[in-house]
Amino acid sequence: MAYQSEITHSGKQFIGGERVAEGERTLVSLRAVDGQPTGYRFYQATINDAELAVKAAEAAHLAYSQISSDKRAAFLEQIATEIDALGDEFIHLVMEETALPEARVLGERARTSGQMRLFAQLLRRGDYHAARIDTALPDRKPLPRPDLRQCKIAVGPVAVFGASNFPLAFSTAGGDTASALAAGCPVVVKAHGSHMGTAEFIAQAIEKAAKKQHMPVGVFNMIYGSKIGADLVQHPAIQAVGFTGSLQGGRALFDLATRRPQPIPVFAEMSSINPVIVMPQALVVRGDKIAQELVSSFTSSVGQLCTKPGVIIGIRSTAFSQFIAQLVHHVEQCSAQTMLNYGTLKSYQEGITALESHPEIKRIGGQMKSQTQADAQLFQADISLLINQDPLFQEEVFGPVSLVVEARDESELYRALQGLQGQLTVTLIGEKTEIAQADALSQLVMRKAGRLLINGYPTGVEVCDSMVHGGPYPATTDARGTSVGTLAIERFLRPVCLQNYPQELLPETLKDSNPMKLLRLVNGVYTRDPL
Amino acid sequence: MAYQSEITHSGKQFIGGERVAEGERTLVSLRAVDGQPTGYRFYQATINDAELAVKAAEAAHLAYSQISSDKRAAFLEQIATEIDALGDEFIHLVMEETALPEARVLGERARTSGQMRLFAQLLRRGDYHAARIDTALPDRKPLPRPDLRQCKIAVGPVAVFGASNFPLAFSTAGGDTASALAAGCPVVVKAHGSHMGTAEFIAQAIEKAAKKQHMPVGVFNMIYGSKIGADLVQHPAIQAVGFTGSLQGGRALFDLATRRPQPIPVFAEMSSINPVIVMPQALVVRGDKIAQELVSSFTSSVGQLCTKPGVIIGIRSTAFSQFIAQLVHHVEQCSAQTMLNYGTLKSYQEGITALESHPEIKRIGGQMKSQTQADAQLFQADISLLINQDPLFQEEVFGPVSLVVEARDESELYRALQGLQGQLTVTLIGEKTEIAQADALSQLVMRKAGRLLINGYPTGVEVCDSMVHGGPYPATTDARGTSVGTLAIERFLRPVCLQNYPQELLPETLKDSNPMKLLRLVNGVYTRDPL
Repeated sequence: MAYQSEITHSGKQFIGGERVAEGERTLVSLRAVDGQPTGYRFYQATINDAELAVKAAEAAHLAYSQISSDKRAAFLEQIATEIDALGDEFIHLVMEETALPEARVLGERARTSGQMRLFAQLLRRGDYHAARIDTALPDRKPLPRPDLRQCKIAVGPVAVFGASNFPLAFSTAGGDTASALAAGCPVVVKAHGSHMGTAEFIAQAIEKAAKKQHMPVGVFNMIYGSKIGADLVQHPAIQAVGFTGSLQGGRALFDLATRRPQPIPVFAEMSSINPVIVMPQALVVRGDKIAQELVSSFTSSVGQLCTKPGVIIGIRSTAFSQFIAQLVHHVEQCSAQTMLNYGTLKSYQEGITALESHPEIKRIGGQMKSQTQADAQLFQADISLLINQDPLFQEEVFGPVSLVVEARDESELYRALQGLQGQLTVTLIGEKTEIAQADALSQLVMRKAGRLLINGYPTGVEVCDSMVHGGPYPATTDARGTSVGTLAIERFLRPVCLQNYPQELLPETLKDSNPMKLLRLVNGVYTRDPL
Repeated sequence: MAYQSEITHSGKQFIGGERVAEGERTLVSLRAVDGQPTGYRFYQATINDAELAVKAAEAAHLAYSQISSDKRAAFLEQIATEIDALGDEFIHLVMEETALPEARVLGERARTSGQMRLFAQLLRRGDYHAARIDTALPDRKPLPRPDLRQCKIAVGPVAVFGASNFPLAFSTAGGDTASALAAGCPVVVKAHGSHMGTAEFIAQAIEKAAKKQHMPVGVFNMIYGSKIGADLVQHPAIQAVGFTGSLQGGRALFDLATRRPQPIPVFAEMSSINPVIVMPQALVVRGDKIAQELVSSFTSSVGQLCTKPGVIIGIRSTAFSQFIAQLVHHVEQCSAQTMLNYGTLKSYQEGITALESHPEIKRIGGQMKSQTQADAQLFQADISLLINQDPLFQEEVFGPVSLVVEARDESELYRALQGLQGQLTVTLIGEKTEIAQADALSQLVMRKAGRLLINGYPTGVEVCDSMVHGGPYPATTDARGTSVGTLAIERFLRPVCLQNYPQELLPETLKDSNPMKLLRLVNGVYTRDPL
């Protein structure tokens, strides 16, 4: 709360450490609950604003990318401190703009600052440098080997597009920003239109941290506006893009980025139906418990989670029929909830209408009662839709709904799983003995997803070294990346090889003396020893 | 030579361990020296052949990707043995098809088999698994942490397009094939049209190795033909592409791959002019030696090397003028040489014509004497062309030619370097004291290239852990990759996270007992200890 009074609302762009605005103040922050203005208003960024923001980032790049890991770590920790210090006015505004309850907002803030601190730890650990050294072999025949050393460097300015459903953890200071800043890349954030006030508070916290830690001006920039994203992605100085959102939005940015004269990588986390496979014995032993937990998983946060279980698959049996009845029962207990904004509610209603009008899908639980909130619902789909890759199974319906699919037998289940598109997660729920025999099943679904779970629920994504929040298309545009966890930094780094460099020109990471005490691959052996 | 008699010429496709052909036998292998037939003829692959080849690779994927690292290593080593055992008929054919001299062919073969053995070592070292473990924290508040483990898995079938200039090391069994097979990905090679006979010998060596080491049928496939590449890249089962060749060819494949319903990564190594910056003191001390070495570097292998120094930049001085005269002198000593094929010669002649007709470029050494061979040549270009990013500086002229550029002063040199497109290499040549002060220069060029050299020549790419043969566009389509060295394997791997997996379902890499004795990141600390 200490800094509360220093936070000011101007509604302007954040460019090179200044608040500037060239366009009109036409963007209105709205309350999620009723679509009425919160009182915060923002300037639409012009093409020139976007250009200035990218140029500020580009101007900061050389200096920022060369700042020591320790100093970058201190900057990330300062951001965490500033975000944690934001007061009641901020929490209240996030709640107003998103309809997320206070506990969730506080939890998500802790996750966001915790994420900054985890990347600070990664910077101090230093393994992201991936230092490799092959020393010279001047006497080798037929040709001598020169001295060759490799490390990773920052790719350059990164454009970040946040998500509506995590206004803190996947937005202005979310995982993309944290990993780009950790990598040594300045960022230009396109503020999300459904929580512009939240974004302004967070951006000010970052600016404050940058100033306190003497970071180069322009290390962080943020612009407001609709239709300005394409200009950002197409600017020649932008070298990578982080995005979390819809399949349509992510693919559009990917298409723009890959059609540039110089194509750049886009890490878009987009669409996943997160299948959950319930195995026969588990249904017999604890069907009702699973049903209750699954309904809780797909309706929590109003089903507005990337990892929401959107399809529940099992093999025909008495226990499975009973399980479906239990799912229906628990769905019927749910109350309608307010979604993130009017657009999200409208998309949910349209998604439900599409399910309702599909001849091979029937509603089996819940119904659309409220016009202004989202009611939990359950549908059942014929398995042929999965097997034949019906487009309905490609894009998630964002909201508290899931589809039940029944396979006649194991072989039909396999065929259905083979038809799956790329996913963020696939989950198996089973008893110990059936899981122990599920090796082939596990191998099959491993090709389909970035994260495989056994006896858990995919909602709740741990921020840690081992997390993969990614997966084959359409879950993301690049299965080699993750947008959660420390591996996310690799998206914004590229390797470089220095040949015959004298000690004084080598970066600290590659000097003979190994001043950072890094674990390095030296002539094929991992060691922390100096050369 | 032992297997010599087992090599047979049929000219058919290699699909799923069989030689098959559906199309016409219309593809004729030609001698580089005079464009006359070598006697080897090949079948044009049909769309159906391409489909069958990809399906064979896809069918092999699950089995091949799960074969232990040790067995995959033995397979790669067997390939090396079989390639080393190819006899005189093979060496003679490579020389016929490419006009490369015997010593170079023997050297390149040793490089190719050596590369296979290096990837076998990498497989045994096991660090490519990148194993990470975060153990469960059941008592953590407010939420427990599940057990999370991460490793890398093969992406799936890879399409490989070899280069004309390295018929062994960058072709059928070159770096792309070696790294894809090491990663656990089956491959489908599109045989290069200018060394189809060479490709057939090598493919048979790979097939023999696959059989001897009991690899799944379909782990390796190769098809012949023009215009069949697009079908390969667009096949839904292909998951990544490796390519070495022209900017136009690489970009075309990239565009096809990124416009697929499911976009896939393309690692195309394409075009680089590999600037060499000669510093003032070095020119005074050893100008003539540098001139001699540089001419040798850009004319060796008839200038048909991706890392050929295509631009030589210095600051105006008496020594630089003298150095230019020395360059001219050494160029005039060169004899005409036979290029890889008629198409390459024609491109070289066209490239020279473009230089000749450019108003701000003048020829200063050598001339087009031969109609059938390539003469070494030297041009001088106005520095404004570099500063203004003239398209002439974007694509290399493949052949024994280089451009000299003179900067008025250091500031103009910097402006010229800022205008550089992405490069495979940038080289600085200087005396100890001027190099020691070149930190800013080194930082500037590091943004432009994958490899930076000091006092060396970029031709000659070491195959080792620290090599980066890659760089920003247009050097490649993905600066995060390298096509030479062990890091190349990462292009064909993606991370996966296993949550709450029981020991019996975990891969060896992630089991508590650490049976492979891997160095793993466990709860933030690197260790080879079991859990």
